Amino acid sequence: MKINEKWLTGFVDGEGCFYIGISKSSDLKIGYQILPEFRIIQHKRDIELLYSIKKFFGYGSVVPNKSKSSSVFEYRIRKFENLRNVIIPFFERNSLLTKKKLDFISFRKVVLIMESGNHLEQSGLDKVIKIKEKMNRNKDIYSKEKSVVIEG
Amino acid sequence: MKINEKWLTGFVDGEGCFYIGISKSSDLKIGYQILPEFRIIQHKRDIELLYSIKKFFGYGSVVPNKSKSSSVFEYRIRKFENLRNVIIPFFERNSLLTKKKLDFISFRKVVLIMESGNHLEQSGLDKVIKIKEKMNRNKDIYSKEKSVVIEG
Repeated sequence: MKINEKWLTGFVDGEGCFYIGISKSSDLKIGYQILPEFRIIQHKRDIELLYSIKKFFGYGSVVPNKSKSSSVFEYRIRKFENLRNVIIPFFERNSLLTKKKLDFISFRKVVLIMESGNHLEQSGLDKVIKIKEKMNRNKDIYSKEKSVVIEG
Repeated sequence: MKINEKWLTGFVDGEGCFYIGISKSSDLKIGYQILPEFRIIQHKRDIELLYSIKKFFGYGSVVPNKSKSSSVFEYRIRKFENLRNVIIPFFERNSLLTKKKLDFISFRKVVLIMESGNHLEQSGLDKVIKIKEKMNRNKDIYSKEKSVVIEG
């Protein structure tokens, strides 16, 4: 399946999600780990398309989506360097047209804080939590995402 | 907002809906009216984008979506000639990549049956009902659409 940049931008405007997870972590001095993730959730009938998107970006995984039924899959990228060097430049070049663009801008901010290392200090973590709180609102229509601030 | 054909195709792969309504109608000898509709539902925060899509196609309306909360709007085209001469040729030129393409193919079949006038006879109506039954499945994830066969 031939993926076109503009098609993919439109598809992500509809179906993509820029997500910041925050988990407790006893390994880190600050006590919390920040887990940015880009994902696209689809019914399994379109799993081939998710594999085509994975091929297009060159990174990521197609896996069952845990929070939904067994017929739902997601394409996701979690590896920091791929988010930083592939996903962020892609959406800098290909501007989203929905208000999801604001989520992308917040996501980008968090990734840049992480790149600077500031997220390992309280001031940086606080910044990330504040940014995350404002992300992925207006999910009340379809409730694709839950807005949990701290995941234990 | 500048709408690009490929972007719009990707966005419709995510958010669009090709819908066939069938309503009772005492005005028609056959007793039922067929109402094809193309729509894109969005949270009101993206109402400007719906207006840009309307401008792009040159037809249709942006209206509140009745079945959802007051914060949800839809862009829709119901007028037969605009579906036939604008929407169908657009998605013939710009192929959908998700399985929603099958819904488009079914939708196109129904519109062509209507163009031939065959939907005013029992055999044509039966064909349309059969086609409609197979459309818009796999909506169980987000339940954006209800699959009502006959609307009274």
